[in-house]
Amino acid sequence: MDKVGVWLIGARGSVATTATAGAAAIKAGLAPPQGCVTESPHFPATLVPLAGLVFGGHDITETPLRKRAEQLGRAGVVPPHLPDLIAADLDAADAEIRPGHVPSHVPSHVSGDVPGDVPGDRDQAAAAARLGDDIAAFRTRHRLARVVVVNVSSTEPPAADRPEFARLADLEERLAAGDDVLPPSSLYAYAAFQAGCGYVEFTPSTGPTLPALAELAALRQVPYAGRDGKTGETLVKSALAPMFASRALRVRSWSGLNLLGGGDGATLADPAARSSKQLSKDQVVAGVFDEPVEGQTHIDFVADLGEWKTAWDHVTFEGFLGVRMALQFTWQGCDSALAAPLVLDLARLVARAHEKGRHGPLPELGYFFKNPLGGGEHALAAQYARLRAFAEELS
Amino acid sequence: MDKVGVWLIGARGSVATTATAGAAAIKAGLAPPQGCVTESPHFPATLVPLAGLVFGGHDITETPLRKRAEQLGRAGVVPPHLPDLIAADLDAADAEIRPGHVPSHVPSHVSGDVPGDVPGDRDQAAAAARLGDDIAAFRTRHRLARVVVVNVSSTEPPAADRPEFARLADLEERLAAGDDVLPPSSLYAYAAFQAGCGYVEFTPSTGPTLPALAELAALRQVPYAGRDGKTGETLVKSALAPMFASRALRVRSWSGLNLLGGGDGATLADPAARSSKQLSKDQVVAGVFDEPVEGQTHIDFVADLGEWKTAWDHVTFEGFLGVRMALQFTWQGCDSALAAPLVLDLARLVARAHEKGRHGPLPELGYFFKNPLGGGEHALAAQYARLRAFAEELS
Amino acid sequence: MDKVGVWLIGARGSVATTATAGAAAIKAGLAPPQGCVTESPHFPATLVPLAGLVFGGHDITETPLRKRAEQLGRAGVVPPHLPDLIAADLDAADAEIRPGHVPSHVPSHVSGDVPGDVPGDRDQAAAAARLGDDIAAFRTRHRLARVVVVNVSSTEPPAADRPEFARLADLEERLAAGDDVLPPSSLYAYAAFQAGCGYVEFTPSTGPTLPALAELAALRQVPYAGRDGKTGETLVKSALAPMFASRALRVRSWSGLNLLGGGDGATLADPAARSSKQLSKDQVVAGVFDEPVEGQTHIDFVADLGEWKTAWDHVTFEGFLGVRMALQFTWQGCDSALAAPLVLDLARLVARAHEKGRHGPLPELGYFFKNPLGGGEHALAAQYARLRAFAEELS
Amino acid sequence: MDKVGVWLIGARGSVATTATAGAAAIKAGLAPPQGCVTESPHFPATLVPLAGLVFGGHDITETPLRKRAEQLGRAGVVPPHLPDLIAADLDAADAEIRPGHVPSHVPSHVSGDVPGDVPGDRDQAAAAARLGDDIAAFRTRHRLARVVVVNVSSTEPPAADRPEFARLADLEERLAAGDDVLPPSSLYAYAAFQAGCGYVEFTPSTGPTLPALAELAALRQVPYAGRDGKTGETLVKSALAPMFASRALRVRSWSGLNLLGGGDGATLADPAARSSKQLSKDQVVAGVFDEPVEGQTHIDFVADLGEWKTAWDHVTFEGFLGVRMALQFTWQGCDSALAAPLVLDLARLVARAHEKGRHGPLPELGYFFKNPLGGGEHALAAQYARLRAFAEELS
Repeated sequence: MDKVGVWLIGARGSVATTATAGAAAIKAGLAPPQGCVTESPHFPATLVPLAGLVFGGHDITETPLRKRAEQLGRAGVVPPHLPDLIAADLDAADAEIRPGHVPSHVPSHVSGDVPGDVPGDRDQAAAAARLGDDIAAFRTRHRLARVVVVNVSSTEPPAADRPEFARLADLEERLAAGDDVLPPSSLYAYAAFQAGCGYVEFTPSTGPTLPALAELAALRQVPYAGRDGKTGETLVKSALAPMFASRALRVRSWSGLNLLGGGDGATLADPAARSSKQLSKDQVVAGVFDEPVEGQTHIDFVADLGEWKTAWDHVTFEGFLGVRMALQFTWQGCDSALAAPLVLDLARLVARAHEKGRHGPLPELGYFFKNPLGGGEHALAAQYARLRAFAEELS
Repeated sequence: MDKVGVWLIGARGSVATTATAGAAAIKAGLAPPQGCVTESPHFPATLVPLAGLVFGGHDITETPLRKRAEQLGRAGVVPPHLPDLIAADLDAADAEIRPGHVPSHVPSHVSGDVPGDVPGDRDQAAAAARLGDDIAAFRTRHRLARVVVVNVSSTEPPAADRPEFARLADLEERLAAGDDVLPPSSLYAYAAFQAGCGYVEFTPSTGPTLPALAELAALRQVPYAGRDGKTGETLVKSALAPMFASRALRVRSWSGLNLLGGGDGATLADPAARSSKQLSKDQVVAGVFDEPVEGQTHIDFVADLGEWKTAWDHVTFEGFLGVRMALQFTWQGCDSALAAPLVLDLARLVARAHEKGRHGPLPELGYFFKNPLGGGEHALAAQYARLRAFAEELS
Repeated sequence: MDKVGVWLIGARGSVATTATAGAAAIKAGLAPPQGCVTESPHFPATLVPLAGLVFGGHDITETPLRKRAEQLGRAGVVPPHLPDLIAADLDAADAEIRPGHVPSHVPSHVSGDVPGDVPGDRDQAAAAARLGDDIAAFRTRHRLARVVVVNVSSTEPPAADRPEFARLADLEERLAAGDDVLPPSSLYAYAAFQAGCGYVEFTPSTGPTLPALAELAALRQVPYAGRDGKTGETLVKSALAPMFASRALRVRSWSGLNLLGGGDGATLADPAARSSKQLSKDQVVAGVFDEPVEGQTHIDFVADLGEWKTAWDHVTFEGFLGVRMALQFTWQGCDSALAAPLVLDLARLVARAHEKGRHGPLPELGYFFKNPLGGGEHALAAQYARLRAFAEELS
Repeated sequence: MDKVGVWLIGARGSVATTATAGAAAIKAGLAPPQGCVTESPHFPATLVPLAGLVFGGHDITETPLRKRAEQLGRAGVVPPHLPDLIAADLDAADAEIRPGHVPSHVPSHVSGDVPGDVPGDRDQAAAAARLGDDIAAFRTRHRLARVVVVNVSSTEPPAADRPEFARLADLEERLAAGDDVLPPSSLYAYAAFQAGCGYVEFTPSTGPTLPALAELAALRQVPYAGRDGKTGETLVKSALAPMFASRALRVRSWSGLNLLGGGDGATLADPAARSSKQLSKDQVVAGVFDEPVEGQTHIDFVADLGEWKTAWDHVTFEGFLGVRMALQFTWQGCDSALAAPLVLDLARLVARAHEKGRHGPLPELGYFFKNPLGGGEHALAAQYARLRAFAEELS
């Protein structure tokens, strides 16, 4: 079976490192494929095996992947002894990481360790060409049938709309004029599409959601999926909200507080980035219920939590004859460990969809996302049924 | 459209009183049908309207229904002013309540207010005949097309198996000999079937689950459903367990503590009755996961909670590369308010199934139960899809 | 024993209505004095008896107290049948309520039901004179030895500092010039002090905390206490924080989300007012621990909660050899029911302190407040010991 | 300053290993003394320094302490790299561990790894002599001024009362006759007292609580303290219960579920041992409130939790005018890490009390225990104040 490339934007981040290390561990028989949805017996065997995935990517930092894996070992995200056992795989993936594009407005706490010698791209047009070349060279070097680009970098603030986002011709005209108009995630999506690759937007960033990029994906016949991996609190919401709906219990309020440590938490300490995430998180409740539901979702950075996250949700609902009742839950998870196997799932599914000639958004992958591109429902079980049907159809 | 009778075993209990009062309130336009699953637009209009339900039943206590409704008003289960507004309906239902059969082993805290003049039945054979006559007379008196008997009385201890439970002929031989061999819930199911009525076992009691009674249901061509209404903690379990399963997250332990006030809590303070409930509650987790899951579910009687219930569940699970995570939830509900609309749903659905010629257990109603008779899955969304298909099929 | 007047700013609000109704209920033997700290046998009998309290106050709305009590009965804050039983007392208190001063910047959702005919005060100088006269007349009318003014009105935004707040002479010069420089709560404190009354700032508003007002309290020899009644989440914090401190467990983060319905929640939906409350809530953790503790306290308005409040707190702490552990709690309380008995306690204690010649801030009452005026510690048990010693000293 | 010996019963268990490793780590400057109550600046410097503690003990297993420390490193109880850094101290303590007495009824899951060559003691009289000799030899070998024996072994079932427990003479007569009448913990206390050592009962076992042993402690002029270290859920209870009491809020129910992994959890899976623990846990609530409080505390063994423990408590309480409110908390702690520093605190305090001539029970140490011997209150802050006064008095 053909090998498939997984090209990670933010390739030295926690999610990417965990995904790379995990694929190596599973390949080596050091861990079961727990958390990988498509490894379940409910899925056909026609997807590329985990051992057939080859890793590379872009990142703006230079910390070696092995060192990052050791940090995650100390933080309890991966077993402490694992990095040593899979050192060769980590080094191989490390050798396939190329410098990311450094956007001028990246917050200093994220770009803090960007070394001085990252080759600056003249402008976004030059960057897009260079980034695309990096991916294409990776594909050639490893004789890969297909590469799927997955964005697992830091969340961006919502992008203001611009007239040139509406049509590809207008967008390319602006880029050709040397104007840097794209949000970083959209620049990567542009480069991926131009290089003929499928793309997964695993963050709440803009990515491929501009009409001009949809036009490009159609032109290049490439599929894409997103947005914002559904890994923790929102996953639980999408399991519980349909429960209330089917029982005709009227949800009156749904409030939440997310406490996040780690790099993701630090990024989300920035109110602009946080607003992207909050908008994304509010989709599920709004998407399941007909009537408006009161309540807000807060996100706090709590450095002490490290790579861990604690979320508390409080739901009030009304039952028979107006009786008020309440449900609350506390979720304590490790976001990188929850996201990493889904990255592997998505790479396999998007590669297969690409192979089968699918292009444009893949709403059938809504199961994985807080804010499914291409529409579709938010109820988890219905999303899962659709995913299984899709996998069947692709086989 | 033909009217349908709802004959409640435990007709003066909290669930029965709430169901009777609620149907009257909805009929009078005093409350929306919140909590009634079959009132949702997803269900066909071919079921009997709520206004077409007529109430009666058996009970071993004599407190008038209006007084019971007022008690529930003070406890916050029904709006405090409601009983006055629907007094005529409560009195009408009250007039249709006949003395229940008093089993010799009923715990004193349940039978405490049984007045001395309840007509004692000579033995179970006499009781079955009398109970069946009560139901048949109700059907005739109101010219009802069909009556559905619903057991919402106190939970019984698990019944020891007996040889005569295996075949109807043997069972009837024993009854004819004057032996009282049936658990009370099974006696009511026997009487219901003999009277040609469908039956719903809303408690974890034995009810219609004896092979001899299945034989009788087949003979009389009547349908039945059960067991143990899924109203609170277990409902949430059946929404969350499939979430873990589909995400390939391995659940390692699931522990719970249920704090219950009210009559149900008092009954369950009896270890034997509690064991019926606990067995029933453990079905969901065992039914969803392939591998065994550690943990116990405790039930405590806390009188101070009145008609309310608080349950805490704690789940540990293992994700990618063995990382351990946890979810906990607290459910604060009013069991009677959660159960009552389901009683109305079940009466409508069983009546319609009966009308359409269905007999024997109805596994399509598994959505409503902790321990679905006739088999079927425990995942809530799948149960709901099956229920909708069934309702469609009946229309 | 002399009677004591309790003059409530916000006399028709939930806290004031509950306090007035509760004192009447206890006097009539309809309820035990549960929640009243000074009714415990640990306190000397020299305080004025609850039956010796006479109620009056200012408010900007005109809803009769009896109607407000009925509303609270429906909301479950007071027993539903209580208002009828104490109607005479409610009407008597109602007759002693005078129009409050309407500040120009009061948010419309609070002042919405202010009727057109509230007598407008020309300026703050005129208002202060009129408000003081109202209180003095009440004292004379009922031959009260002393009146304690208690502010239980809506929370104000923090007040910007002004040069004239520093000295009484400067402040009075500005008022005499017709300038409206005082925040509303400080205007009431000014009027109370001028009328020779003790004052309790039960809200987080500025109230008596301006140096010019401290000067006035000294001049008039009146005592005062505050600030921000410690009724729920912060009460628990002040019990738990010293536990960690004494055990040498290092608290690393303390985060919280408060969900509030009712009028208080609506006021706090205004970010400016909310910031007063948040500042106040953060005092306890900062006051108990030597080292800084990460984390924020959020306040959300959730209308569906009515008069109830749910707060969730999450604490991470470090123990022996750096091991990380966590505590979380959920508090579900009724703020008015928690605050009302403390209002009675405070009125009794401040009246007695006044009688005994105490003036200026009373730090011995820190037990009751989130942000004790006059300094003192935040640990609850230490505050309680100090309170008991103070009560002993006053007897 | 004189050195002090800490002789641990269960010296290879999790608590003992953590205490031994922690004292070495603090001595070496590898960790701050977090969690050690007596290291706070509130305590006088007259206690023996942590570096002056010398460790030894009895145990029925032979796993070397260094290996046990490595296990705890993998479980996250001590830093993973610590055991290597303090190997010499661990080995030194290991060399001071002598075979424990093997009681005939020890459950097999505890004694499972008892090797065949543990020298069996002929009977309890012989055992007491041998155990006492072990301790005395340790004291001589290290020229220790004093040795404190601390029982941190597995919890025993409650012991049935026996007539010979009432008087020392009777007890010794039975022992001399070769009768094994003492529960194991009491045998160790007997040996400790006979050897002239202070004793701490850190478990809920019987230990020194027999009248005959109190007589012996008086005779030998040795102090003792206990019972059942207050490390987690009960600690929180003793901080919260006085909060309710001082606020005159009437607690109506207090329910709890403790989920424990590890060796302690396994021992407590035995219903008899569990009942000792539950009795102990129920002391606090009963000790703080005048009126009875409904509710039970459950203890479940959940192997998946490893060395960690999760406890959920649910409290209902009644406030002003009978309003019902609720508090719930979830505690997630590591029992060994919570207990170990208290063992060090207790050894220092008991040694100092011994030096100062105190003998018999030390109620001033009630702060550390669920069930304080010698009486005294259960309110945490009051216990802490008493502890500080005691430390002051000893200095």
